[in-house]
Amino acid sequence: MKQASGTPAWLPFLPMDIPAGNSSAQLARSELAAGLAALASSQRVELEVKGADEGYDILLREGTLHIRGGEPGVLYGTYTLLQALARGEPAPLGNYRPRYPLRMLNHWDNMDGSVERGYAGGSLFFNNNRLAYDQARIHRYARMLASVGINAICLNNVNVRPPMDGLILPPQLDDLAGLANLLRPYGIRLLVCVDFAMPARHEPGTADPLSPQVQAWWALRAKQVYARIPDLAGFVVKADSEHRPGPHTYGRSHAQGANMLARALKPHGGLLFWRCFVYNCRQDWRDRQTDRPKAAYEHYAPLDGQFDDNVVLQIKSGPVDFQVREPVSPLLHALPQTKKALELQLAQEYTGQQIDLFYQAAQWQDIFRQLPPGGADYIAAVSNLGDDESWCGHDLALANLYAFGRTAWRGESLPGRYAMEWAALSFPEAAGEITKLLLASPHVYEKYAAPLGLGFMVNPQTHYGPSPEGYEYALWGTYHRANHEAIGIDRGPEGTNFTAQYPLHLRQRFERLTTCPDRLLLFFHRLRYDQRLADGRSLLQRIYDDHFEGAQEAEALQAAWLELAGRVPPEVHARVARRFEMQVQNAREWRDVINTYFYRKSGIPDEQGRLIHP
Amino acid sequence: MKQASGTPAWLPFLPMDIPAGNSSAQLARSELAAGLAALASSQRVELEVKGADEGYDILLREGTLHIRGGEPGVLYGTYTLLQALARGEPAPLGNYRPRYPLRMLNHWDNMDGSVERGYAGGSLFFNNNRLAYDQARIHRYARMLASVGINAICLNNVNVRPPMDGLILPPQLDDLAGLANLLRPYGIRLLVCVDFAMPARHEPGTADPLSPQVQAWWALRAKQVYARIPDLAGFVVKADSEHRPGPHTYGRSHAQGANMLARALKPHGGLLFWRCFVYNCRQDWRDRQTDRPKAAYEHYAPLDGQFDDNVVLQIKSGPVDFQVREPVSPLLHALPQTKKALELQLAQEYTGQQIDLFYQAAQWQDIFRQLPPGGADYIAAVSNLGDDESWCGHDLALANLYAFGRTAWRGESLPGRYAMEWAALSFPEAAGEITKLLLASPHVYEKYAAPLGLGFMVNPQTHYGPSPEGYEYALWGTYHRANHEAIGIDRGPEGTNFTAQYPLHLRQRFERLTTCPDRLLLFFHRLRYDQRLADGRSLLQRIYDDHFEGAQEAEALQAAWLELAGRVPPEVHARVARRFEMQVQNAREWRDVINTYFYRKSGIPDEQGRLIHP
Repeated sequence: MKQASGTPAWLPFLPMDIPAGNSSAQLARSELAAGLAALASSQRVELEVKGADEGYDILLREGTLHIRGGEPGVLYGTYTLLQALARGEPAPLGNYRPRYPLRMLNHWDNMDGSVERGYAGGSLFFNNNRLAYDQARIHRYARMLASVGINAICLNNVNVRPPMDGLILPPQLDDLAGLANLLRPYGIRLLVCVDFAMPARHEPGTADPLSPQVQAWWALRAKQVYARIPDLAGFVVKADSEHRPGPHTYGRSHAQGANMLARALKPHGGLLFWRCFVYNCRQDWRDRQTDRPKAAYEHYAPLDGQFDDNVVLQIKSGPVDFQVREPVSPLLHALPQTKKALELQLAQEYTGQQIDLFYQAAQWQDIFRQLPPGGADYIAAVSNLGDDESWCGHDLALANLYAFGRTAWRGESLPGRYAMEWAALSFPEAAGEITKLLLASPHVYEKYAAPLGLGFMVNPQTHYGPSPEGYEYALWGTYHRANHEAIGIDRGPEGTNFTAQYPLHLRQRFERLTTCPDRLLLFFHRLRYDQRLADGRSLLQRIYDDHFEGAQEAEALQAAWLELAGRVPPEVHARVARRFEMQVQNAREWRDVINTYFYRKSGIPDEQGRLIHP
Repeated sequence: MKQASGTPAWLPFLPMDIPAGNSSAQLARSELAAGLAALASSQRVELEVKGADEGYDILLREGTLHIRGGEPGVLYGTYTLLQALARGEPAPLGNYRPRYPLRMLNHWDNMDGSVERGYAGGSLFFNNNRLAYDQARIHRYARMLASVGINAICLNNVNVRPPMDGLILPPQLDDLAGLANLLRPYGIRLLVCVDFAMPARHEPGTADPLSPQVQAWWALRAKQVYARIPDLAGFVVKADSEHRPGPHTYGRSHAQGANMLARALKPHGGLLFWRCFVYNCRQDWRDRQTDRPKAAYEHYAPLDGQFDDNVVLQIKSGPVDFQVREPVSPLLHALPQTKKALELQLAQEYTGQQIDLFYQAAQWQDIFRQLPPGGADYIAAVSNLGDDESWCGHDLALANLYAFGRTAWRGESLPGRYAMEWAALSFPEAAGEITKLLLASPHVYEKYAAPLGLGFMVNPQTHYGPSPEGYEYALWGTYHRANHEAIGIDRGPEGTNFTAQYPLHLRQRFERLTTCPDRLLLFFHRLRYDQRLADGRSLLQRIYDDHFEGAQEAEALQAAWLELAGRVPPEVHARVARRFEMQVQNAREWRDVINTYFYRKSGIPDEQGRLIHP
């Protein structure tokens, strides 16, 4: 670990060290006392604890505030109150109930201490192939999560290979139970990623879900795990995906595979989260029939109704892979009889890797607007945390974790509100300016890295920085097929017919050039460079403009940050300034490479005569 | 290691186990006896050993053949005779003298057992950060080298980092001396790559070549090394290159750096090989002034006359980096007062990675024809060997090692002759056909992977398979700048003026479109796709044609190989057949990706209407 402990993040008024508490109520009391003292508040507050609900009410009775709820409800209420007081707001009276019963953070941590797609240092949990963590830091981590109502974490990478599969076996199971005990007062339950193929390496000698030996083996595993961690929320599985084994290996369906595991968990009240990130990752670029966004729907929609009631299909928000801009995954509309979790990615794999600033709540808002009525049943997000001293690599990237917690609790994304809340807590002397930076950031990044829904123009493997044809002849099914006069894939009825996977209203919106939002234009359509957009500009001119503007606006973000010297802690200011320096470089590189790429391809100059390198 | 021992390669008539011999003469006698017996020859042969010359004569006196020479000359003569007899040729009477006094193989082996740019398994020498080799196999390796007159090996990677720098210190120096003893009877001398920065990590605390402490430190190192290995041929150094430290770190010239090391070796008769692979590997692709092929000349030509007489500048054959086709490095013409070694690369980094067949002697012949009178003083080649059971990954790639030995001895490359010699020894029942395959192979590969001198359209990092813009926006200075109507870099007087580095006759040949060979056209010129070539075809049509033909000819190579079933050992036939299968796939990928790339870019269809994926 880089240092022994992280900062108190957006709770700077709370002490670094957290008083011991064996229950949420005890913890709430001590946090409340410490918080009120630190905030120099004379407000009288009483806790009324009853039951185990997550919900809580904040009431005012004769000058005394009452936080009434179960465990951990009263803890959540305590943090809500303290945060409001810290922002100088009136007492946040009201009744609070979470929209999703499970609000999960997925860590992609490996047991060697690395983090897959991690941009904030090493793992918070693992080192040297075992659980090994800084207790004080994990307390602060858990407090941070609880303060926004995140109530579950899955602590290991979805790509489970030995020795990581041993997490659910003794002796490591003891370590896992220890971590569960630590997290329990914060209202946080554990999940574990398991390897579907694991029984093939043990007595059963197979992982066939229809084998009674395999079923018994998993039942025994679950029993052992729940004996040590009675409130484990469940297992997470990535199967038959990107070279991971799965039920298809045995000619079984994903319903058969998922149900088998779910039945092992059922007696203990556990859920089985089954990830739907399944597609052909050995596609031939010459193949114009296969269209990667269609894959998840094609795999899972026909299985609707076949899953047990404790199976949850975990579905990425978009149909491809966490690009800067994607439409909602049609699979989220296609499983009325199946439990579903919406999966977001806080880790900024394709959105600047916590070097470039990218506040994600607007992206989520766009997704939520396209969700079916009722939306998903659960919500999850891939963590952006690591053992970096500032938690996320980029101090401002913590805003995404905060906003995720708030979004998950409320079941809606309110970008401006969450940004302002977070900034007012974290940097009270520059809250307005930082809120503006956050809100502007995704539009700036989108302009220089992925305007019009163009995805995967990134460097292969790293996924940072531009490579216009980096994925064009690869096996991953992510092509734009740009030529000298046009770019994009026609995904409508004349093309791959991906749009047919959507309900009618979305289908029509995406298929018609007049109603398809600009930001998704090249996701759904193949267009000529001279195609006129609604504002009269040609498609190519829009691409040039966005890149020139994006790079310029990145510089403006940097300048705005530099203005804040003296209004945020100096070490934070310096750290973030270094990030902005890198972002400005990156934005310039995107601008020049992409503009040159299209200029070389089309021969069409910029109408404004700005410099495009020939 | 994959198995305990390699095959006897092109000496299949010799026994696997080599009788012990403490001197070249003893070894010659036992190899001669074993060879004559195996070949059932009744020829009487006498060895006349005198001195330590490498040269030898083969004479016939009254029915007895005499091999007369020094040590190792008589051993070379023995192998020459045995190989001629094995091919059924008359006794090769004559006087034999090597053209280059040092004929070196450079292994890029790392001490962890990996091989940089190795395509034949792991290291023959290292494992687990120490020298660890199969003695019997190294004997066979040494015999193979001696049989074609290779007389020096540098056994470790030019990129020397700790712990590899410890090779020249006790206790590893003892292991190194043991290896030198093993190789000595074969006439093979060791060299070691050293790290210029090494003294900075020891008492001197600096590596400044003008520091007396540094000079004394290296003098002591050399003394220690030569005390254990009195015939060490010298050190090899890569400095100030691709992030390696060097004299520039201390504001010193490469002459100052090289001379300092050379003076440490001088009292012991050692040579200092100083690699000239120095260029800006952080180039901005927007920068059109810097031109990577100019770098080595610019660095070293001004230093001519400043190097000590035991400094040898080791210069890659071409000015870029072992591409399929390059002109000769102008630096080889620019150092009349400096000792020079010509460096070739047997490891097929850019020429098919020992998956695709690529016989290199024609490429060398092209280079030799462009060398100045007198050529180089020494010759070296990066090894294509590893612990693979067939030595090179591809059984037929051994032909390159054989041809290098013959080329290095004779000072000229005779592709047809060496191929036929090797094939007749290795596969006597299919020698003619295999010779044809070998001779055709580089032209086939060049057609589908790099026609017209186009380089670096390869996948970044791996360097295998096509990526038309893989290096186009990278830091390595390797750009083709293709747009919708033209491709290539003008390196003549109107362009980067790289051609000015050549002597007049080469300069004029390359600068004029009418005299520049087609195979170097796009190396020296930027041309429109509709530019007519000598045969009337347009440049683009020639690119299409070469790719279609190349892929077809790769299939023809495969078919020709499959015809040879029963005429080569079955396990070899099967192994090579698998390689050809991969090559055919690779050639198709090259054909389709490159043709599609240019078709998308230009919009110009193939005149013959063959399939180009849109």
